[in-house]
Amino acid sequence: MLPNGFRVGGICSGIAKKNEKKDLALFVSDSPASAAGIFTKNVVKAAPVLIDIERLKKGDKFFGIIANSGCANACTGIEGEEDARNMCLIVEKSFNFDRGSVLCASTGVIGQHLNISRGKLERSIDLLKSSIGTSVESENDAVLAIMTTDTFVKKTDKRIKFENGEVKIWGCIKGAGMIHPNMCGLSTNLHATMLSFILTDAEIESETLQKVLENSSEKSFNCVSVDGDTSTNDTVIVLANGQSGTGKLSRSDLEKFEKVFDELALELAQSVAKDGEGATKFIEIEVRNTKTGIDARLIASTIATSPLFKTAMFGADANWGRILAAAGRSGVMFNLSKVDIYIGGVQTFKNGKVLDFSEAEARKSLLKREVKIVIDFKAGKENSKYYTCDFSYDYVKINGSYRS
Amino acid sequence: MLPNGFRVGGICSGIAKKNEKKDLALFVSDSPASAAGIFTKNVVKAAPVLIDIERLKKGDKFFGIIANSGCANACTGIEGEEDARNMCLIVEKSFNFDRGSVLCASTGVIGQHLNISRGKLERSIDLLKSSIGTSVESENDAVLAIMTTDTFVKKTDKRIKFENGEVKIWGCIKGAGMIHPNMCGLSTNLHATMLSFILTDAEIESETLQKVLENSSEKSFNCVSVDGDTSTNDTVIVLANGQSGTGKLSRSDLEKFEKVFDELALELAQSVAKDGEGATKFIEIEVRNTKTGIDARLIASTIATSPLFKTAMFGADANWGRILAAAGRSGVMFNLSKVDIYIGGVQTFKNGKVLDFSEAEARKSLLKREVKIVIDFKAGKENSKYYTCDFSYDYVKINGSYRS
Repeated sequence: MLPNGFRVGGICSGIAKKNEKKDLALFVSDSPASAAGIFTKNVVKAAPVLIDIERLKKGDKFFGIIANSGCANACTGIEGEEDARNMCLIVEKSFNFDRGSVLCASTGVIGQHLNISRGKLERSIDLLKSSIGTSVESENDAVLAIMTTDTFVKKTDKRIKFENGEVKIWGCIKGAGMIHPNMCGLSTNLHATMLSFILTDAEIESETLQKVLENSSEKSFNCVSVDGDTSTNDTVIVLANGQSGTGKLSRSDLEKFEKVFDELALELAQSVAKDGEGATKFIEIEVRNTKTGIDARLIASTIATSPLFKTAMFGADANWGRILAAAGRSGVMFNLSKVDIYIGGVQTFKNGKVLDFSEAEARKSLLKREVKIVIDFKAGKENSKYYTCDFSYDYVKINGSYRS
Repeated sequence: MLPNGFRVGGICSGIAKKNEKKDLALFVSDSPASAAGIFTKNVVKAAPVLIDIERLKKGDKFFGIIANSGCANACTGIEGEEDARNMCLIVEKSFNFDRGSVLCASTGVIGQHLNISRGKLERSIDLLKSSIGTSVESENDAVLAIMTTDTFVKKTDKRIKFENGEVKIWGCIKGAGMIHPNMCGLSTNLHATMLSFILTDAEIESETLQKVLENSSEKSFNCVSVDGDTSTNDTVIVLANGQSGTGKLSRSDLEKFEKVFDELALELAQSVAKDGEGATKFIEIEVRNTKTGIDARLIASTIATSPLFKTAMFGADANWGRILAAAGRSGVMFNLSKVDIYIGGVQTFKNGKVLDFSEAEARKSLLKREVKIVIDFKAGKENSKYYTCDFSYDYVKINGSYRS
């Protein structure tokens, strides 16, 4: 269920997809909203990313997000930036929103221009304006319109009860390839084309909202990898319009909000790995007890991006040696004689030595849709979790086929 | 043709492969030889790597290399180290070589122990001793015995004419997966299970030979990637026995030797990418005109390991956007408006803008067995080349199947 004061929708505009599929989504708030955003750290940033960063630095109140799929509007030069600004401007004009108060996002093929000549975009926005709403159908239309190789609609929502009322948070996300989000805030830096839009009717100022998003992303969006390739377009935008009627959140209420926000962000992030291109299984990699948090994260992300580990998972092969080899090349020093490995609950390796484990049992656990890998270094107290999927024939099929 | 004074061979011993294929190779010099070696930087180092490093630090004269395929003897604890020492010792005893003068190497499945109980290894060395020789057949037997998923024998040789005679260099190599060599010398650190053995009858002391190998590997062995996964076993060993009869090389002769050694190392390294697991094409990535050499290398290696780039190459798709996205996430800062991209001789991108290039022509060039990608940053004078292969269904098939 959408938070109060938001309307969303999606249509087939033809500006980015040729196949008569939905390609243009709109998320609007009836009242001005605080906003927060994190964007790809890739040196090559798509036009909408550049525009959003500029707008979030400058403005404080926003009314919406216009997003397309099928064309990334990346590596498109000044013309591309003009197109992105135009997308926003036409929404602003149509709804009579302030100039600079609409954000934008794109996902799709790099290097192609949006097909927005001859009033096409104006007509599309008119159509969107008349079709947006608050129904589940509208939600689905919006999410469908940002999907590329995604195979299912990924969205979730939460309600938080406070003493003086209820706050809602709603979020959607799309993957499904070029996913290794490394996004950061406006001043520093964070990877995919992962696009995620989170809407809430909580009353939170932009600065606080930005902190909530950045903290959360380090345990969610930035802990997902499908293929290790960080996109030019990764974008997460949060809009908070304060329409819940609960007023500004108290400190303890904010803590409660953050906890629920973290849950929502994690669910969204995990859903991207579950719908990774060609994925047959979702894999959680938990690295335990390293000296530093960076160590844990580096080892987890190296395992999550190892083609040999990921193909072994596709083959349901408890090849723990590949897990160790990946950990060993991560750049982190460790004492092998302390390392334990668990594959789907079956311990295969203990204190640096292979155990006489049941291959059949390990294989059985790897044939499930969801698999958990644990590697314990017993060197410290830091932990990290990373979410990924296996590497299948279909990944090659999806990405080995000609652009079109 | 083997250099003077060397004999080689390979047999089916059953100590590491179960399928009656050759799995044990021996390379021996009739006279004491100088030696140099570079080994994986992976924190998890296989037993033979640990033994070789220890021996090369201590000793100066070596008589041979015993190497097996099918079992990596990695993550096998103290028992594994004893097995590796034993492999060497039995050769030393059989040939009456000095203790510590034989080196060793293994490649195959991680975590399995060599099957060397009940005199099996002694009988195998006896058999090897009687079968080694200098013929092309012996060379092929030796190389076959170190192969795992390799599909062809990879070896080459060179002759160098000096005023007072001729020096020969012979080298062999095996890949074909877990290939992203990052090997270094004994004191510092350098990636695959790439095994390569290079034999020469030049007279060069160990220290000089080590420098020649380390310099050379930075432009050859350490510039190859099949899957980005750095092995626990990568090993390159050079033996120089001085049997050419030309005496110690003069400074100018040494320069000539180094040049030819570099050519041989590059040929060997490239052959690994040509025979990468599931490879349908060999890809050379040339990064031009970056500010620093490290920048060039980092961009080249990031492109070479990008699953999206490699699957596009499999599909013969001139998807230059994926090349840029990989460069952009490499960690190197650059000015997009200066970047040019050439795919198989077809320029697709110039000064930050896509060109109206012929997709048909680009595709035609990508359907060839060998493809060259050039990306020019026009930011400095440093260059780097990296060698890789495409990512095919067969890579998934080979690595998604159960260990055996």
